[in-house]
Amino acid sequence: MINQLVSNIKKTGAPVVVGLDPMLSYIPEHVQKKAFAEYGETLEGAAEAIWQFNKAIVDSTCDLIPAVKPQIAMYEQFGIPGLAAFRRTTEYCKEKGLVVIGDIKRGDIGSTSKAYAVGHLGKVQVGNNTCVPFDEDFVTVNPYLGSDGVDPFLEVCREEKKGVFVLVKTSNPSSGEFQDQLVGGRPLYELVGEKVAAWGEELMGDDYSYVGAVVGATYPEMGKALRAVMPKAYILVPGYGAQGGRGKDLVHFFNEDGLGAIVNSSRGIIAAYRQEQYARFGEANFADASRAAVEDMIKDIKGALEHE
Amino acid sequence: MINQLVSNIKKTGAPVVVGLDPMLSYIPEHVQKKAFAEYGETLEGAAEAIWQFNKAIVDSTCDLIPAVKPQIAMYEQFGIPGLAAFRRTTEYCKEKGLVVIGDIKRGDIGSTSKAYAVGHLGKVQVGNNTCVPFDEDFVTVNPYLGSDGVDPFLEVCREEKKGVFVLVKTSNPSSGEFQDQLVGGRPLYELVGEKVAAWGEELMGDDYSYVGAVVGATYPEMGKALRAVMPKAYILVPGYGAQGGRGKDLVHFFNEDGLGAIVNSSRGIIAAYRQEQYARFGEANFADASRAAVEDMIKDIKGALEHE
Repeated sequence: MINQLVSNIKKTGAPVVVGLDPMLSYIPEHVQKKAFAEYGETLEGAAEAIWQFNKAIVDSTCDLIPAVKPQIAMYEQFGIPGLAAFRRTTEYCKEKGLVVIGDIKRGDIGSTSKAYAVGHLGKVQVGNNTCVPFDEDFVTVNPYLGSDGVDPFLEVCREEKKGVFVLVKTSNPSSGEFQDQLVGGRPLYELVGEKVAAWGEELMGDDYSYVGAVVGATYPEMGKALRAVMPKAYILVPGYGAQGGRGKDLVHFFNEDGLGAIVNSSRGIIAAYRQEQYARFGEANFADASRAAVEDMIKDIKGALEHE
Repeated sequence: MINQLVSNIKKTGAPVVVGLDPMLSYIPEHVQKKAFAEYGETLEGAAEAIWQFNKAIVDSTCDLIPAVKPQIAMYEQFGIPGLAAFRRTTEYCKEKGLVVIGDIKRGDIGSTSKAYAVGHLGKVQVGNNTCVPFDEDFVTVNPYLGSDGVDPFLEVCREEKKGVFVLVKTSNPSSGEFQDQLVGGRPLYELVGEKVAAWGEELMGDDYSYVGAVVGATYPEMGKALRAVMPKAYILVPGYGAQGGRGKDLVHFFNEDGLGAIVNSSRGIIAAYRQEQYARFGEANFADASRAAVEDMIKDIKGALEHE
């Protein structure tokens, strides 16, 4: 699946991923109203609004981008119907040829991590049948519990030829509270980065490993250091746009071949119609605003890489 | 809810929690067969087997115990139907007067953590309606992303008078890989423990805080140190029984009032019928075996506390 991701990136020329993180407040009123008319102001109604919103954005941007990253929390907050919308979104994006990165940040011990891995990347045995629960292509994984929390994900990745992005340095302001603590003179995130490189050695695609890393766009200097520590890891970079990251901050996350990193933007794309810059599209044409925002993001990042 | 937990513990005299982590392989064949006959060998069939299994164990043990801890991964691996069984289990346990600790180990940044917090402990607004997505009493939280990943959970806890258990030192063998790293001469888990104490100061119940900690039974010495660092935090202790922890290892997790810790056992209780010690019950009476295992566990822990 890492080969598929790299191939999609080469084909589109766009090292970007659209974060499908639909807060209800991002969803235009006409979409919400229609969903509520059918399902009521219920969890089912919210889930339908999310699904219709996602579908419109995917339809409008899928030829430009290699991948999407639905954030499962935004679906889980609407309970079972919300999670059904997550699954439906994943399925639809895969039909459209997009690589799906489930931003689930799961992580637990042994058999429990195995259950998450199977549930999101693999297949589960029920009697004599093999069932597919969620079926993302990649998921994000939290490393705080150590190798025996990560290994079960790697096992499933090997079987299914899928991948993970391990949280190394997150984009939020207080990520440093634990991640930056010095351990033997070096920050903890570097230690985690080294583990990512080691975990990934045995799980190589053509040029990059099945085991990638999450490193926030908001910390470009750390991105530079981590790029060197994990040369074969694809870096998933959140924090672009709404969180403050810009194309010029991102050049060090990439390798010299222009590959090795994929930059996520969520709010900046899916709620583009609410920004002054894209207001001309109007709320009714929110998906066109998202397309324009994707085009601008690609231009920004490619421009920065070319000027390097 | 921490007051409710403490009151339930005092009432039952049992500082124990039953981990409802139903692997299909733990579920007696007759329960599986019945479920598959009705729903097929499908995710729905697996979810029905889980639900019937849980219900029998809860019915058989609920007068002895203060709380249960369903591990969401074991449900999530069966997709949407599995998660519906999780919700149904939660609801049923609450009807029985049990405190429900959702072992979800979620943790993300700002608005995303907020979505998890709302989804599992709070209420979500849909149009003019307020909906309740999952509705546990406590959840477990991963701290790797720092304060701004934890704060949204605390906000919702304050509103709902609910609580969290933050992962401090987990019970698995490789938990030390990152958690034990020395930071300024002290292990990282102590730093996290201090944060737990600080986060909990503003969220006090009568005697204990809404903010508790997870510390594995497999690390009793660390439990002793952490007890001192977080005097007002309830400690949720996994790793008893099947993972190797025993009553005598646990005394230092408790305060002198005999409170302050609650010990989880999952496999050791729910799959007790498969142990030699409880084989006399037979597979058909698996829930009676679970009851006997709960009684033995309570005796073991109370005995250890009394001999201290």
